[in-house]
Amino acid sequence: MTTNEKSYKQKAVVLLSGGIDSTTTLAIAQKIGFTTYGLSFRYGQRHEIELKSAANIARNYSVAKHLIVDIDLRLIGGSALTGNIDVPKSRSVSEMGKDIPVTYVPARNTIFLSYALAWAEVIGSSDIFIGVNALDYSGYPDCRPEYITAYEKMANLATKSGVEGNQQLKIHTPLIKMSKADIICQGIELGVDYSLTHSCYDPSSEGLACGACDSCLLRLKGFQEAGVSDPIKYKG
Amino acid sequence: MTTNEKSYKQKAVVLLSGGIDSTTTLAIAQKIGFTTYGLSFRYGQRHEIELKSAANIARNYSVAKHLIVDIDLRLIGGSALTGNIDVPKSRSVSEMGKDIPVTYVPARNTIFLSYALAWAEVIGSSDIFIGVNALDYSGYPDCRPEYITAYEKMANLATKSGVEGNQQLKIHTPLIKMSKADIICQGIELGVDYSLTHSCYDPSSEGLACGACDSCLLRLKGFQEAGVSDPIKYKG
Repeated sequence: MTTNEKSYKQKAVVLLSGGIDSTTTLAIAQKIGFTTYGLSFRYGQRHEIELKSAANIARNYSVAKHLIVDIDLRLIGGSALTGNIDVPKSRSVSEMGKDIPVTYVPARNTIFLSYALAWAEVIGSSDIFIGVNALDYSGYPDCRPEYITAYEKMANLATKSGVEGNQQLKIHTPLIKMSKADIICQGIELGVDYSLTHSCYDPSSEGLACGACDSCLLRLKGFQEAGVSDPIKYKG
Repeated sequence: MTTNEKSYKQKAVVLLSGGIDSTTTLAIAQKIGFTTYGLSFRYGQRHEIELKSAANIARNYSVAKHLIVDIDLRLIGGSALTGNIDVPKSRSVSEMGKDIPVTYVPARNTIFLSYALAWAEVIGSSDIFIGVNALDYSGYPDCRPEYITAYEKMANLATKSGVEGNQQLKIHTPLIKMSKADIICQGIELGVDYSLTHSCYDPSSEGLACGACDSCLLRLKGFQEAGVSDPIKYKG
């Protein structure tokens, strides 16, 4: 899960939601020297507007290709992000880490990584980047380091290269031990333009962030702790 | 991966393609006593007609629910089953096991199992059935027992139940060591109506099996070795 810092021109698939974490991850993958392939999902999320941000970021970073895959997770249900459950508002950040939140989407990262695995195999890449981090894995089971390790092991048995043994697939998680403030500081160092990103789970119809959902609160706290002002607009 | 034979009324998600293996697997899951939830995929397969068979079989077995999920793997590509690569015809069965065939769909089982995992979590099931078997894993990497074991381990770290530790997810592969003939014999014992199933990778527009693709040849050989006549129609 660590990332070799030397420069080489290999292809990498980068999961790109359009938020702070995935955008910073994309910047890191490019800095290392990978030719990047951005992968996003229209999964029935109520904040589908994040895909506009993902597309702008993909363009901004001149990724080799940006794929938006349609997978309607509303059919499966079970989450505030894809269903009729209300997105919780104005919780304290300390409260967030206690339980798995209702915004958890069952097996979402497993599904996302599976598409990344398929695409990596097709384009001849053995590197997948995902922006999971310590903040996430306090709440979401599929962001924990032990999950990523198990996924990597499974992935290496799932594919042609696993059988032929000619390359080992690697899941890169460069942010895994970082706080939101660390991530923002690193991104700013890399020149990331955070005005392009979207984080809110429950934006207004014009796409303005609510400023009160878990994702907005973590974002605002991250910018505050990093000592940087958040360049996006909030409603009200 | 073994299946406890005692009878209980738990829910199980069964991957159902409409072929011999998944139909027999469904019959086995029901025989054990599971309340079954059938899961199929419209993934851009050229033999989309198999979904008609899957729906008929789901009805025939009165599954609690049958979900057909749309996931267009053509965007990702890399397979004769979803792209413009020709489906190989009239190969000898011994030839098939040597390499990973062009009909291999990158990471397909990983993607399918990931949806099954999501659905299982939502309906409160800790049992997933998949009809992989020895014949498959001679050619497809994501049918091998070690892959299934690794998937199960990853899945138990991916979900709420993995965190809360209240139930262990199990991937059941009741056919894993069986030949096609064994599977057919077992299915007939369980009263499976194989006239409802579809196996051909390259059917005619009326849905008739070609009789020459790998899948047809393995099916025909299986029925022959089981000493039973295949109840479906072939073209020509």
